[in-house]
Amino acid sequence: MIKHLVVIGTGLIGGSFALALKRKGLVERVTGVGRGRANLDHALKLGIIDAIGENPAAAVKEADLVLAAIPVGAMPALFRELAATLPATAILTDAGSTKLDVIAAARAALGDKIGQFVPGHPIAGAETNGAGAAHVHLFEGKPVILTPLPENRAEDVDRVESLWAACAARVARMSEKDHDRIFAAVSHLPHLAAFALMEELAYRPDADTFFRFAGTGFRDFTRIAGSHPEMWRDIALANRDALLGELDIYIGKLEAIRGMIEARDGQALEDIFARARQARANWIKGKYA
Amino acid sequence: MIKHLVVIGTGLIGGSFALALKRKGLVERVTGVGRGRANLDHALKLGIIDAIGENPAAAVKEADLVLAAIPVGAMPALFRELAATLPATAILTDAGSTKLDVIAAARAALGDKIGQFVPGHPIAGAETNGAGAAHVHLFEGKPVILTPLPENRAEDVDRVESLWAACAARVARMSEKDHDRIFAAVSHLPHLAAFALMEELAYRPDADTFFRFAGTGFRDFTRIAGSHPEMWRDIALANRDALLGELDIYIGKLEAIRGMIEARDGQALEDIFARARQARANWIKGKYA
Repeated sequence: MIKHLVVIGTGLIGGSFALALKRKGLVERVTGVGRGRANLDHALKLGIIDAIGENPAAAVKEADLVLAAIPVGAMPALFRELAATLPATAILTDAGSTKLDVIAAARAALGDKIGQFVPGHPIAGAETNGAGAAHVHLFEGKPVILTPLPENRAEDVDRVESLWAACAARVARMSEKDHDRIFAAVSHLPHLAAFALMEELAYRPDADTFFRFAGTGFRDFTRIAGSHPEMWRDIALANRDALLGELDIYIGKLEAIRGMIEARDGQALEDIFARARQARANWIKGKYA
Repeated sequence: MIKHLVVIGTGLIGGSFALALKRKGLVERVTGVGRGRANLDHALKLGIIDAIGENPAAAVKEADLVLAAIPVGAMPALFRELAATLPATAILTDAGSTKLDVIAAARAALGDKIGQFVPGHPIAGAETNGAGAAHVHLFEGKPVILTPLPENRAEDVDRVESLWAACAARVARMSEKDHDRIFAAVSHLPHLAAFALMEELAYRPDADTFFRFAGTGFRDFTRIAGSHPEMWRDIALANRDALLGELDIYIGKLEAIRGMIEARDGQALEDIFARARQARANWIKGKYA
């Protein structure tokens, strides 16, 4: 049982975490902190939080668990704010989409409280955001990655894991380096690729002609281009090195396909498409689960 | 009323067209022709077709309407087969994903019957295929493009348009050049981009690690990588020039984003993401419909 949960960033992720734990009876009281007063008022009205904190430093003073669910670019300043007031008995965890940079920021700010920080990343994004988008089932069946630190107490990591498990998430642990490498490829790169296509078409003089005839394939391919610009700016910069590597590989693959088309190499094209289709069928069937 | 519809390629598109017209009572008899006997037997069993034709040349002899719903790379040979036996009273139309090349093939093969060919393209693909995937509602609300020829009789074009309209599709007319340019951007390029990512990840030694943590964004982005390899090989080659142009633009946009990440230019990244998000929101809201 968590007596006092403080959620910093009461949006889709933070709000859904609070809702799911409340539903399970695992939390007594939730305080929300955030930049937007209107969103906090909304969260209060929706019963996601029980009180609004004035600022992070004050809000965490009596916390048992603190969840930082804000864009990763805002984490360093947050950790500096919390460093002095975070109680020695509290666990601090996060929902940041990148881990190497968030951990580096935590190390720089938290000093000898670094062992209290259990880094995490729930994989449950959506194009919606804000407290109004939060719902109790968001994490059901979704992966949550923990990247524990050598300084963490095993029972604190287990505690955080058990709370995500109570949200019906599938919790996995890995190193922060593996986390950032994997998500550069399966999440960050596809977001950039979707943003790129959408923006390219939108600013053509005859954009309306293109969009009028775009179908369901285009709709699904570009769904993640509806994601939050500030959050994805932060992710792109935070996971810069892995993402540059993935971009180079992806651009190289597109160049290779371009070469096959230019050379009218139908067999090579069919082979690459068939391998992709087979791989996706395997993935959907759960071969890699 | 169509007395005798011949569907060449009794798969998702051809089968759904036959089903929708039967449901509306607009067709008396449907003959299916195709490469795979098992699929034709299945179509017969499902009531999509009433008879199986031995080959296209024989099947069309008593046809009023012929729909060619096969990969565009197979169209030239089909048109050559049909040229001698297509009755002067029959309309030939197609469902090919590209139009410049299909029209060129029709012109080369059909001689003075070219006026009987009304080129079309229903935008209703899916990762499923075969007669078993066909359903009566496939075209409801979906765009169908007609790219009429100067040689077409106006009443033949109207006839084809009215049949698609009876399937509840939204029919538009444009030039074949505009068609190919538009679909290179909103359909063909995204397919290549999805195939490219899926194939790249699938053949890494540690592919399973990546796929295990891929989420819903990845699932939607790569949905079209489940499309049919042969069909997409044909499209890539048939729309080669427009597609090479779109690939160059897209690779250029990805290179530009790469440059912003390398230069840590957060403002430029946020701007591009925000423009993409706004454009997609406008599109979803129907601004361009």
